[in-house]
Amino acid sequence: MLDFFFKPQAIAVIGASREPGKVGHDVLKNLLDYKFPGPVYPVNPKAQEILGLKAYPSINELPQGVDLAVVAVRAPLVPEVISLCGQKGIKGAVVLSSGFKETGREGAKLELELIESARKHKVRIIGPNCLGILDTYSRLNATFAALKPLKGKIGFFSQSGALCLAVLEWSRAEKIGLSRFVSLGNKADISEIECLRALAEDPHTEIIMGYLEGIEDGRAFTEVASQVSRQKPVIIFKSGITAAGARAASSHTGSLAGSQEAFLAAVKRAGIIRAETLREFFNLALYFAGNPPMEGPYLGILTNSGGPGIIAADACEKSSLELPTLSAETIEKLRQVLPPYASFYNPVDITGDADAERYKKALSLLLEDKTLNGLLVILSRTATVDPEAVAETLSDKKGTKPLVACFIGEESVKKAKTKLLKAHIPHFEYPEEAVSVFDKSWRYKFWLNKPRPKAKRLKVDFKRAAEVLQLVRSEGRRYFLDHEVKQILEAYGFTFPKTLLARTTDEALLAAKVIGYPVVLKLVSPQVQHKTDIGGVKLNIQNDEELVKAFQEMLISVRKRLPGVSVLGVIVQEMVYKGKEVIVGFLRDPQFGPIVMFGLGGIYVEVMKDVTFNLAPLSKEEALEMIREIKAYPVLKGIRGEPEVDMNALARSIMAMGQLVSDFPELSEGEINPLIIGPRGFKTIAVDARLSLGGEK
Amino acid sequence: MLDFFFKPQAIAVIGASREPGKVGHDVLKNLLDYKFPGPVYPVNPKAQEILGLKAYPSINELPQGVDLAVVAVRAPLVPEVISLCGQKGIKGAVVLSSGFKETGREGAKLELELIESARKHKVRIIGPNCLGILDTYSRLNATFAALKPLKGKIGFFSQSGALCLAVLEWSRAEKIGLSRFVSLGNKADISEIECLRALAEDPHTEIIMGYLEGIEDGRAFTEVASQVSRQKPVIIFKSGITAAGARAASSHTGSLAGSQEAFLAAVKRAGIIRAETLREFFNLALYFAGNPPMEGPYLGILTNSGGPGIIAADACEKSSLELPTLSAETIEKLRQVLPPYASFYNPVDITGDADAERYKKALSLLLEDKTLNGLLVILSRTATVDPEAVAETLSDKKGTKPLVACFIGEESVKKAKTKLLKAHIPHFEYPEEAVSVFDKSWRYKFWLNKPRPKAKRLKVDFKRAAEVLQLVRSEGRRYFLDHEVKQILEAYGFTFPKTLLARTTDEALLAAKVIGYPVVLKLVSPQVQHKTDIGGVKLNIQNDEELVKAFQEMLISVRKRLPGVSVLGVIVQEMVYKGKEVIVGFLRDPQFGPIVMFGLGGIYVEVMKDVTFNLAPLSKEEALEMIREIKAYPVLKGIRGEPEVDMNALARSIMAMGQLVSDFPELSEGEINPLIIGPRGFKTIAVDARLSLGGEK
Repeated sequence: MLDFFFKPQAIAVIGASREPGKVGHDVLKNLLDYKFPGPVYPVNPKAQEILGLKAYPSINELPQGVDLAVVAVRAPLVPEVISLCGQKGIKGAVVLSSGFKETGREGAKLELELIESARKHKVRIIGPNCLGILDTYSRLNATFAALKPLKGKIGFFSQSGALCLAVLEWSRAEKIGLSRFVSLGNKADISEIECLRALAEDPHTEIIMGYLEGIEDGRAFTEVASQVSRQKPVIIFKSGITAAGARAASSHTGSLAGSQEAFLAAVKRAGIIRAETLREFFNLALYFAGNPPMEGPYLGILTNSGGPGIIAADACEKSSLELPTLSAETIEKLRQVLPPYASFYNPVDITGDADAERYKKALSLLLEDKTLNGLLVILSRTATVDPEAVAETLSDKKGTKPLVACFIGEESVKKAKTKLLKAHIPHFEYPEEAVSVFDKSWRYKFWLNKPRPKAKRLKVDFKRAAEVLQLVRSEGRRYFLDHEVKQILEAYGFTFPKTLLARTTDEALLAAKVIGYPVVLKLVSPQVQHKTDIGGVKLNIQNDEELVKAFQEMLISVRKRLPGVSVLGVIVQEMVYKGKEVIVGFLRDPQFGPIVMFGLGGIYVEVMKDVTFNLAPLSKEEALEMIREIKAYPVLKGIRGEPEVDMNALARSIMAMGQLVSDFPELSEGEINPLIIGPRGFKTIAVDARLSLGGEK
Repeated sequence: MLDFFFKPQAIAVIGASREPGKVGHDVLKNLLDYKFPGPVYPVNPKAQEILGLKAYPSINELPQGVDLAVVAVRAPLVPEVISLCGQKGIKGAVVLSSGFKETGREGAKLELELIESARKHKVRIIGPNCLGILDTYSRLNATFAALKPLKGKIGFFSQSGALCLAVLEWSRAEKIGLSRFVSLGNKADISEIECLRALAEDPHTEIIMGYLEGIEDGRAFTEVASQVSRQKPVIIFKSGITAAGARAASSHTGSLAGSQEAFLAAVKRAGIIRAETLREFFNLALYFAGNPPMEGPYLGILTNSGGPGIIAADACEKSSLELPTLSAETIEKLRQVLPPYASFYNPVDITGDADAERYKKALSLLLEDKTLNGLLVILSRTATVDPEAVAETLSDKKGTKPLVACFIGEESVKKAKTKLLKAHIPHFEYPEEAVSVFDKSWRYKFWLNKPRPKAKRLKVDFKRAAEVLQLVRSEGRRYFLDHEVKQILEAYGFTFPKTLLARTTDEALLAAKVIGYPVVLKLVSPQVQHKTDIGGVKLNIQNDEELVKAFQEMLISVRKRLPGVSVLGVIVQEMVYKGKEVIVGFLRDPQFGPIVMFGLGGIYVEVMKDVTFNLAPLSKEEALEMIREIKAYPVLKGIRGEPEVDMNALARSIMAMGQLVSDFPELSEGEINPLIIGPRGFKTIAVDARLSLGGEK
């Protein structure tokens, strides 16, 4: 995929320059310095020769066989350049030039021209306003960055040029190196999605890192990421997530940031390893460059100092990891090689007088202990320990289980750190940071272990719902009437309380017969707001006799308390089981498409914001996961001896809402609130609901 | 305070050794190398001379005038050494020797001997099992650390030797330097409290950093910290906070970690700047070494790269800080000096082609803008910008408002970083970390701005409560009877629903007359568990007629449904206003003493853990703060048109519980659950309560 970008036959640099510091000069120099094996042609109408190469006056006059153009001309010229490239048979262009969408309205217009020209002449574009691309294995450095890349296993794409520079420098310092890197710039044509695919296919890329500010087609991105995550770790750092950040993002690249909830749902679905800070972004890549993910949550900690050991243990407690007790065998063996005042539990503290030899003995034993899925080795620089010797021991022992080092200090552990990095043992400055990457590696593994979610199509009456929508459409309405909302949701398997209007006792008796006892009576009067206050609601009516009595009492009570009001009648309603009130809703995110929301009703949603989201449609397992994700989950499981609610019925309700929003792009938002859910065997009842039109046509 | 430790006249090194690598050698060498101005006497019975100094065979033969001993003999000899020191008139001893409490039971016994000896001979002890102490201004380096300290403004105390080494090295690397440092070791005598006082008094210490695993007298620590925090920032990193961490702590130093809630309450009360990670611990000190706290929450961000600017903006959104729009004047001036495609909003993005000059112009304008309380300057290493020149500009401009730099990169910004550090401009590697310290500085300032909390004594019937307790004590009981709980709480101003037992309708009528309508009737029968199910509860009885009817109906219903049961009578109870259910409780923390807890009742506490704590007794403002701190606060403010609850009454309830637990050390735990709180004008009712004995005698 996109091989003409990453493994081109011949490259033309359009706008090549003789002047160092100019983008058109620096990129050409990088291409030559990095020893691109194929021909490189500078194009510049005013030069004969640049950097020892013959310069071509125009694209037209270039030799045949050029498949990649690197464009560094002034922005207004770019659309024309692209059209000439297309005519010459060039397949891809990396547009370094800035002055497009990022500069305002005029630039945005120019970018549209560029896109049009590229489409018309079948030239694919990376950029504009980007730093370039590189592939260290095909010796392609088509960037104007000053630093020379190191060959390695990180494939990186980024919407920020600054982050490109940072990753370039970091990957050199940490000796990981890069396989490919793409500065996406304004993403006029090629987006993170194609990039992700190209990095997935690249055999030299073992870890994918992506920095994003906006995601245009979140749904497609999620689908691709779900596949790629099964092959290699995909570490994404997305900024512009919060309101303030999003504001800055839209003034920066003009991209529309998706809502945080939708992005987090996508992360969950796609097994994306989300970095929460820039530092963690780098730390995660460092971890995966040296280790597979943890196979389970059990971490061992080896330390020569109590303090940092406790700090690491604290960090574990806050994570999904656990510090298991070591096997009895390991403890026994440790007793034989460690002094009696050492701590044989986890963290294993070999104490401040430990030397490299003691580290070696303890390390061997811990690596053999099958209880542990990973090992964190902490070292404080004491007089007795030689950090370099410990680093060597770690390097020798590497390979049996995930191994991470945390040598505390600056200058005094510098050489040891270098040794560790060379052996691809990730090193972090502080214990908490080491624990945090272990944690995320286990969460990733946990995702890998899960069966792929398959949204199962529920049996619903699609046709019925479609008819209702067709009717609304045919009448040119942009809203639903109450009964239409009910009809659509009933078609998708929801049940509303049965309701009939009665004006006389006879009608009420008939209604109750149709509905079945117990029933509820509610006064219907346009002038009465608070029915309960004036005796306008009677609950739990069990039989005809009670019904007649309640009906009469209600009318008498109303006439007595509010003499003048007109009574239209009485609603006879099915008595709803007093279960738990939940909310099941959906919305359509501009980037990530249909999203389902679930939470416990009332204050839990309004005040405590205890809700969870996922992409729709979704599998039963995913729906059950959503139920378990809310903090108030124990309430549904049943507290104080209450029975558990019918989890299957609840999962079905969530799935049905997901299916509805997926089936009808016209629906923009919807919610059943409350949905009453009881224990198994009780009917699930939708008490109130709304649906909004306004989505895609 | 403790001047004989930090500014001794003459020092004896007991157990001085000729052998490099031995503690008794290294500490002597450090004292000499660091050029301690007074006499230093090695004590060693087997040596004539050590490191060019005459060695003394015994403590007894030392010249007069020694006030500080540094002890490095084997652990079993230490108690005797201390007694000899005392006899010689030595006032303080830094015990470096290990082999005490940290090694197990035998060591703990030895430590008790040491303490006894010290008390008896009036020698104050730092340690044992510590790295030593230093005071860079009196040229005292009584540590056996390999690194030479840099003179500076950080005063540091630590329960972990490893952290001491780390801080020593870090303070050199970041060019901050240290004023004093104390390795607390096992804290046999001198604890963090005296240390804190000594650092507070020291004029050279401008910032205090403390690493703690356990706090023995949390209450006293909080009181001292509250005072010291008003003079200089007190940055505390406490580990062993979580359950796993606490386990590791107790196997490490045998110290009992206080509960997290109590510690967090102390932090809140004392204005402590709490570091949440080890990295943040260092970062906070770096910030305060270069800057005063922010005066308000308004941060400005200046950047040459969009990505890192957005990342910083995201971090602000998650903090208590805000990114204000700049003043119109500043924006106007920026327009004159920046290219049109720059972003004039906050973050101010001077774009990737900016040079040092452009930074300078923008920086001057932002520093002049009165809207901003602090400025974060982000730099990505581009071809056009010279990081060192920008670092120089920052150094020149320093002083007008808090200033922090974040230059992204490794080698390429190294020299610039060094320049910044020299000028005491804090530099952080990543934008989020810079924002986080700004945030904590503002929170600290916010605390400084608050009036000092003064726990006001409420008018309570202390005598009455004391009588009840006296009765319980006199009967040798370890528990309260129900009516005693009520009596105590009533004495502290709480009201329980009025309740009377009635066996006949006449008695019930009389009871209702005493209590006043409306009332509730509740069946009293030892055999009936679920009264409501068999008609055993009647609510909202308004008058005599309704009472008689309800009474008879209840008896009939019970006889009909449960023919055989014995009915003892009926409880007539005051009808409680249906307000909000809250929980007000207290507990006595082993380290931090009386703590008050507050939360919304029921599921909010049990499932959502939405509770808050503070130290007792507490001021009204603090009680109101607690109410505002819970997530469910909007429920108390009134949602969906409900009235606000009586905040003053609620605050009084919290204060009263705080006063109760403070007044009676015998009370170990207590709780009113639920306390029913209504809008202003309604009575606050304690429905159920419990009190436990078991606190201090």
